[in-house]
Amino acid sequence: MTQIKALFFDVFGTVVDWRTSVIRELSDFGAAHKLDADWTAIADQWRGLYQPSMEDVRSGQRPWMILDELHLESLQVLLKQHKLEGLTSEDIADLNRAWHRLDPWPDCVEGLTRLKEKLILSTLSNGNTSLLVSMAKRAGLPWDVILGAETAQAYKPLPQAYLRNMALLDLQPTECMMVAAHNDDLAAAAALGMRTAFVARPLEYGPHQHKDVEAEQDWDVITNSMIGLADALEC
Amino acid sequence: MTQIKALFFDVFGTVVDWRTSVIRELSDFGAAHKLDADWTAIADQWRGLYQPSMEDVRSGQRPWMILDELHLESLQVLLKQHKLEGLTSEDIADLNRAWHRLDPWPDCVEGLTRLKEKLILSTLSNGNTSLLVSMAKRAGLPWDVILGAETAQAYKPLPQAYLRNMALLDLQPTECMMVAAHNDDLAAAAALGMRTAFVARPLEYGPHQHKDVEAEQDWDVITNSMIGLADALEC
Repeated sequence: MTQIKALFFDVFGTVVDWRTSVIRELSDFGAAHKLDADWTAIADQWRGLYQPSMEDVRSGQRPWMILDELHLESLQVLLKQHKLEGLTSEDIADLNRAWHRLDPWPDCVEGLTRLKEKLILSTLSNGNTSLLVSMAKRAGLPWDVILGAETAQAYKPLPQAYLRNMALLDLQPTECMMVAAHNDDLAAAAALGMRTAFVARPLEYGPHQHKDVEAEQDWDVITNSMIGLADALEC
Repeated sequence: MTQIKALFFDVFGTVVDWRTSVIRELSDFGAAHKLDADWTAIADQWRGLYQPSMEDVRSGQRPWMILDELHLESLQVLLKQHKLEGLTSEDIADLNRAWHRLDPWPDCVEGLTRLKEKLILSTLSNGNTSLLVSMAKRAGLPWDVILGAETAQAYKPLPQAYLRNMALLDLQPTECMMVAAHNDDLAAAAALGMRTAFVARPLEYGPHQHKDVEAEQDWDVITNSMIGLADALEC
């Protein structure tokens, strides 16, 4: 563990509570535009389209597209399904940027600030660069560097998403720890030789979450907050 | 000016005093390895090889290479010229990382910290990502995002170096200001529609500097420190 020089963070779910935030953004949008809908269901459906939309890019069926574009396509599908009409493209673009305005879990700013004293803190998110920068400015997330799918031109869990970003920092896998609330993200990182930290976020998908409630492998660190991670790494 | 959302900073010379720092690094290296040489001359010669080495990449004569690699090649040439022998490749690699250990001009941390309150602060340097991250950690430079030649795969002043990095932030040129101590960098940025700030660093090349001693065009901001820039932008 003393070899670790950089932490690579998954962001959606691990650092930010996307669900509560997106429900809030949708509800506020509905109130402002006098639209009524089951905003919680729409938030979950929007996230439900996330993996399938990236899979079309991962598989090579579609050319590279950033997450803002994929989110926008998914949103347009959902607005149509729910018969939410009469919106300008500017309204829809602003609503799409809900994903730029996600709140961190309460332990993150304190934990990351401690970790930053000793380690390089990088994002390694499927979110695009501008999304991650906007989010960090608004939420006060103290990243040293913003890396992710866009800087690798590949979506996790493809190996290139991890390898290209480690190369940008000129680090070997054993010098890097992937931090995520998702077992599959850590499995992909571990397969490349990265160290792994599982941060349990059992409410990421709401009160009835079934997946990723706990660590499914013997990850290098298993904790439930960024403060716990800072303790584990003696930061 | 109220449209500006992000500042893109040239780094070598504009934010950090590379010359004083590289002379110090070379002298310390010489002392540690019991080598004697005119370290000031070697620092200036090393920097002298900077533009020619990038020009081979810009022109397409050579494939893409990051600045750490170009710096290393130049260093090897100079060590040979100056008959500095008996060094391991590890010694030389560590000396090459002198460019990761540059000190900021005294106004930078205070000025950047003020600017960061209102604006996105990005590097836009010909330095590679890992160099810029190491430098920022050591010097306490509060960047929001690390962009540059490596994220664009193009060296300034090629248009792609500016355009690709603005695209990564999803910003239009009129929303971006290039901040540099070099008139040619600002001219390239202005030609693409970016706003411009000249920060005079008349000692960048030492006491006998002839180039870039002052602003050569009517840039949007002309100042001599990051504190002056913060004042001008009402941060």
